[in-house]
Amino acid sequence: MHDDLLPAFKRGDQRALARAITRCESGRGEELIHAVFGSAGRARTVGITGPPGVGKSTLVGVLVAHLRRQGKTVGVISVDPSSPFSHGALLGDRIRLTEHYTDPGVFIRSMASRGHLGGVAGATADAATLMDAWGLDVVVIETVGVGQSEIEIAEIADTTVVALQPGSGDSVQVLKAGILEIADVFVVNKRDHPMALQLERELRTMMEMTEFPGWTPPLVPTQAIAGEGVAALWDAIEAHDAYLRTTGTLARKRRGAFEHRVRALALGALAPRVEAAVATIADGDPYAAAHAVLARFGT
Amino acid sequence: MHDDLLPAFKRGDQRALARAITRCESGRGEELIHAVFGSAGRARTVGITGPPGVGKSTLVGVLVAHLRRQGKTVGVISVDPSSPFSHGALLGDRIRLTEHYTDPGVFIRSMASRGHLGGVAGATADAATLMDAWGLDVVVIETVGVGQSEIEIAEIADTTVVALQPGSGDSVQVLKAGILEIADVFVVNKRDHPMALQLERELRTMMEMTEFPGWTPPLVPTQAIAGEGVAALWDAIEAHDAYLRTTGTLARKRRGAFEHRVRALALGALAPRVEAAVATIADGDPYAAAHAVLARFGT
Repeated sequence: MHDDLLPAFKRGDQRALARAITRCESGRGEELIHAVFGSAGRARTVGITGPPGVGKSTLVGVLVAHLRRQGKTVGVISVDPSSPFSHGALLGDRIRLTEHYTDPGVFIRSMASRGHLGGVAGATADAATLMDAWGLDVVVIETVGVGQSEIEIAEIADTTVVALQPGSGDSVQVLKAGILEIADVFVVNKRDHPMALQLERELRTMMEMTEFPGWTPPLVPTQAIAGEGVAALWDAIEAHDAYLRTTGTLARKRRGAFEHRVRALALGALAPRVEAAVATIADGDPYAAAHAVLARFGT
Repeated sequence: MHDDLLPAFKRGDQRALARAITRCESGRGEELIHAVFGSAGRARTVGITGPPGVGKSTLVGVLVAHLRRQGKTVGVISVDPSSPFSHGALLGDRIRLTEHYTDPGVFIRSMASRGHLGGVAGATADAATLMDAWGLDVVVIETVGVGQSEIEIAEIADTTVVALQPGSGDSVQVLKAGILEIADVFVVNKRDHPMALQLERELRTMMEMTEFPGWTPPLVPTQAIAGEGVAALWDAIEAHDAYLRTTGTLARKRRGAFEHRVRALALGALAPRVEAAVATIADGDPYAAAHAVLARFGT
């Protein structure tokens, strides 16, 4: 790394943070992560996931404002391609957060939804490490709840918030996607909606049927567009954080995140080598061929 | 393999085929596949995929009847958990195929949708190899078009049929899932539906915007429940097969299927070893940790 990026990063230059994330995103961030990893671990990482249209970006916006009022610095990583954050917009005019564009205490970054080595989670985890090491207090990762990505984000965040909205059949989706297992906090956004209480009831019923070892996810009703419920949401995140810290769960959770990340990197590096080995094997019994491939990896 | 399974399998015992598939499904099929692999390669494998409710199982049922009338023997592998085949039912009373239960020329098998080593595609490919080696002429693999599984099936089948239905927004889904790339034949089932012509038009428009190197997927309207269009469907599958054979594409496609299968087996065997290695690595820079893991695999 024969450039001025690392010194600028360490000085707290915001453009250096942006460039560092870009470098990681393009798969050239290894040295950088190596250099700053020791400074990371202090930030609180919060994943916010949920189906499209639930109001995640609005929720993130009001949460950022809430944290700024408390004097906390915040990084936002958006891996939701439909999020306004991904297009450089911050909520528009309803909630006046545009001031954050020039606020050095807020750093917003969108990530491509398919990543380099280690997948989405790899690039996102790198970005979170960089924001953390750079000195931001809270790192919020916004991801759209479709497919595998929200589960991956739950692997790397300390606290995962699952946002749902009334009248959308969301409660059924919750069970489907196994999202109940990843939620540390539930948000029922659009709490003024006529179906809001019904969604809350359904969620509570489902939660009653589930065993939660240690921590039971609280259910926070919000009206993000009006900023309502955001203090209760942060309190719930703080309560989960306190639970993680007092029970030693945080260390276990971060160890799990570390292992998840290393596994993704290692398998991501092995896959093309396996592919190259397979291409050299003659047709025949696929199990025998797989053994021949595995022999090249000392197994 | 110190048992009588292989001799019974080679004698053409149908229960031996069933037991052989069960053995593969539970991850103990390696010796068996090794022993019979040389006899496989003669059957034609046809994947039939599409969204839930499109009538795939009915389509498979009438296709089986059509093939039986031609004197061909048929194996059906269902990896769709919602398929009636997966529950041992064969279409019920509308189309009288229940006679096939006692027809030795038809063998029906449902597969668990999450598999052993090598995933769904691994267990399904094993079952297809066994049916092929056992002597069935055509192997039909029915899979529900959600997520990754239909793409995996397209990797192992000679011909992939994508079934769509009118009035369901299917044409949009086609583009979304990248299913246009895997279809060798399109079926618009429920052709009597008022929206059928519109779906056909949309599909044709989308296909006009796509470059098809070599083979352009034909579009076959069917009314599976009445057995209509099934002859045209088989003709389209035969035409694709002729294309594959006359252009040398079949050999390339089967080589691709072989490589896909070996890759899945090899990575499936490496993953738990990587996991075990990761568990022994101390916390720290994840890239350095990944290198430490990779060093154990001679890379």
